[in-house]
Amino acid sequence: MSTIFTKIVNKEIPCHLIKEDDRFLAFLDVMPLVEGHVLVIPKQEIDYIFDLEPELLGDLMRFAQTIAPAIKKAIPCKRVGVAVIGLEVPHAHVHLVPMNRMLDINFSQEKMKPSAESLAKTAELIRSFLL
Amino acid sequence: MSTIFTKIVNKEIPCHLIKEDDRFLAFLDVMPLVEGHVLVIPKQEIDYIFDLEPELLGDLMRFAQTIAPAIKKAIPCKRVGVAVIGLEVPHAHVHLVPMNRMLDINFSQEKMKPSAESLAKTAELIRSFLL
Repeated sequence: MSTIFTKIVNKEIPCHLIKEDDRFLAFLDVMPLVEGHVLVIPKQEIDYIFDLEPELLGDLMRFAQTIAPAIKKAIPCKRVGVAVIGLEVPHAHVHLVPMNRMLDINFSQEKMKPSAESLAKTAELIRSFLL
Repeated sequence: MSTIFTKIVNKEIPCHLIKEDDRFLAFLDVMPLVEGHVLVIPKQEIDYIFDLEPELLGDLMRFAQTIAPAIKKAIPCKRVGVAVIGLEVPHAHVHLVPMNRMLDINFSQEKMKPSAESLAKTAELIRSFLL
């Protein structure tokens, strides 16, 4: 069975898109740690990040690198943190989290539940800063 | 002034080495979240991970990828998590953390303070599983 992320890749489930190319997709986490929390995934459904082909892994990080500056411009923060946890959805995903404090990237804390309208605005703002 | 990580690169400060090549260094975090917590750094002193040249960033992740399986063999865990926080030492570093629970990668929790002898044993064990 496809993961929820593969369903997003296949447009069976909508997302708040940030950026897409032939191999990667970036979209907003709908239960963010903080506003502007983005997920970056390979379209290929591979569970564990370190099982990606080395070239794909490197390119995934470089794809994330093209997005991080837009997040930083859209959401005031000291920097964009990176995390790959991988104990939930079995499809490798990189969390990009605008950070001001160490606590902003604590996955044990309660998640936010922004409205679809609020997410759409955040996504539009981040996209507007993509080069 | 050099960061503490540059001093480690230059052998001015010792570390519990895991792996080294001409561009990257991996060593044990001396205040780990859990046993087997490894830091992977570029030798070049660059503060913010996304300021690395794209090629170097991709290769840093691929270098980490060569170490993660050895950590997983040495330290029983579900998988090796990845985090880049960057609010402390101003020298980009990737945390590789053996994870069994979401909480294992919570940077707000109190750090462990293993003895040098214990760290040396852990480093030796991880190195023994490097291919």
